[in-house]
Amino acid sequence: MTVSNNTPIKISDKQIATEFLNKYDTFLFDCDGVLWSGTHLLPSVVETIEMLKSLKKTLIFVTNNSTKSRKQYTKKFESFGIKDITEKQIFGSSYATAVYIKNYTDLKPGEDKIWVFGEQGIEDELHDMGFETLGGSDERLMAEWNSDTTPFLPLDPKVKCVVAGLDTKINYHKLCISFQYLTQKEPKTQYIATNIDTTFPSKGMLLPGCGSMIDLLTVSSGREEPPNCGKPSQKMLDTVFKAYPELQRSKCCMVGDRLNTDIRFGLEGNLGGTLLVLTGVETEDRLLQNSDHGLGLPKYYANKLGDLYEFTH
Amino acid sequence: MTVSNNTPIKISDKQIATEFLNKYDTFLFDCDGVLWSGTHLLPSVVETIEMLKSLKKTLIFVTNNSTKSRKQYTKKFESFGIKDITEKQIFGSSYATAVYIKNYTDLKPGEDKIWVFGEQGIEDELHDMGFETLGGSDERLMAEWNSDTTPFLPLDPKVKCVVAGLDTKINYHKLCISFQYLTQKEPKTQYIATNIDTTFPSKGMLLPGCGSMIDLLTVSSGREEPPNCGKPSQKMLDTVFKAYPELQRSKCCMVGDRLNTDIRFGLEGNLGGTLLVLTGVETEDRLLQNSDHGLGLPKYYANKLGDLYEFTH
Repeated sequence: MTVSNNTPIKISDKQIATEFLNKYDTFLFDCDGVLWSGTHLLPSVVETIEMLKSLKKTLIFVTNNSTKSRKQYTKKFESFGIKDITEKQIFGSSYATAVYIKNYTDLKPGEDKIWVFGEQGIEDELHDMGFETLGGSDERLMAEWNSDTTPFLPLDPKVKCVVAGLDTKINYHKLCISFQYLTQKEPKTQYIATNIDTTFPSKGMLLPGCGSMIDLLTVSSGREEPPNCGKPSQKMLDTVFKAYPELQRSKCCMVGDRLNTDIRFGLEGNLGGTLLVLTGVETEDRLLQNSDHGLGLPKYYANKLGDLYEFTH
Repeated sequence: MTVSNNTPIKISDKQIATEFLNKYDTFLFDCDGVLWSGTHLLPSVVETIEMLKSLKKTLIFVTNNSTKSRKQYTKKFESFGIKDITEKQIFGSSYATAVYIKNYTDLKPGEDKIWVFGEQGIEDELHDMGFETLGGSDERLMAEWNSDTTPFLPLDPKVKCVVAGLDTKINYHKLCISFQYLTQKEPKTQYIATNIDTTFPSKGMLLPGCGSMIDLLTVSSGREEPPNCGKPSQKMLDTVFKAYPELQRSKCCMVGDRLNTDIRFGLEGNLGGTLLVLTGVETEDRLLQNSDHGLGLPKYYANKLGDLYEFTH
């Protein structure tokens, strides 16, 4: 039996970990399932990040989680004791969506409004870009759906776009109004997804993700699938390279817990390396069994990100 | 220009209405979008039903709405002044689902439990069939999702099946637990849909329907699409003919507001006639434009069911 060149290398001892660390000068990290799982910090993550900083590595955080803005993310890092991470280092799918709307649509800030199905992070990033939003975290949407009493009917003719992301406070009121905007004929609204992960890891469990909620809206409204601003879309990587023009792709490594978003993102972006960690969605069995399932394989994998620190100390 | 034999005949005057009424001795009615739209009774419906009763027609009501049991439906008829409709005349998708589970699965009443994503109608019909249910309208599911405090974890090992229907009180707590049951490995749960309508008409609007919620569960869990117990599945028609063995298919007419469920149901069931009414999902333009879109066409169509009465009185 010959081992394919493509078989991922497991980071399983000090030598491999050291080689891996020497190979790259920039690490792009997914967050959920890599650094933390929901509200649980994963083991030796703080130590690993501190080690990378002391090695003068550039650290960038690329997350599909749309529920928080970059500003809110800096607070999440702080609350976990991961210090001195700035907004500039954080690329969330909400921010990528706002950048996409600015660069690729004809929507005008201060004029056109955006209906949000999703959480605060989307609203904050769109507001930062100068857009007025409706829906989202508006408390009035928590009232039971009633077409006679909802304050969101009739529809606002200034709404020209629906942005949809994960909403863990999903309810029928939000779905019904989002559906009305998506199915109105004049003007036909644009429809944009923050990301398309069908699940997301939280506290060691998997839960329904953004992509499945977007599917509900897409299927019911009969719309085409919306463009996706999160990983693996290269729109997200473009945004990173615009902010960090000095980066060399060959010296960058994408670290994530999902083959179909994180690893694909790194491979399609021609980054020098990819590292899959097994603290999120994928398992070692699935990784090694699925060698030929069409999804690209990572160059490296590890049981957890913290192994980089534990094997070298 | 030759008119195709398949062009639907519009019930547009007294003569056509009378011919139509004479042709059939049994009418199977969809309810939402035909008799009522949400909580609004549609015009001249009571008069039409009374007229059909006085003509000694057999009246059967076949609805994909899973939120109510047959018993609850009799009350809805009464509340609209549609008199003397009995449980035996009503076939809801919740009832069809309970019949399907009894006839086509190895689930044992009194032993195996069923997790319900959906409303009271599903629970009532399953209880009538002797099954214990979990989830559904349990008020504890209205609490915000928290994996540490939910009373629905750990999963109940006696749950062998997930039944999913429309839930207008959809929330993340319900989705998360349904997802856990759908993705557990041992035992692998059965997964059954009450119906697959992606939208439903209510008070003159369209709203997201059962089928799109089921899609969310199917996509996030990675399960195959579940069997569908509602129209156009012929399981529903089998249930009707078992209860009414004397019916002749050629003398039956299916009346509905949807081509892809109601009309298809009648055509695939070889019923003598089909009547599309335009008070729900379809419009006249779409009907006549879509002559060759692959969905079968109805034999008749009418602006509204009440035209049968209005044209003949």
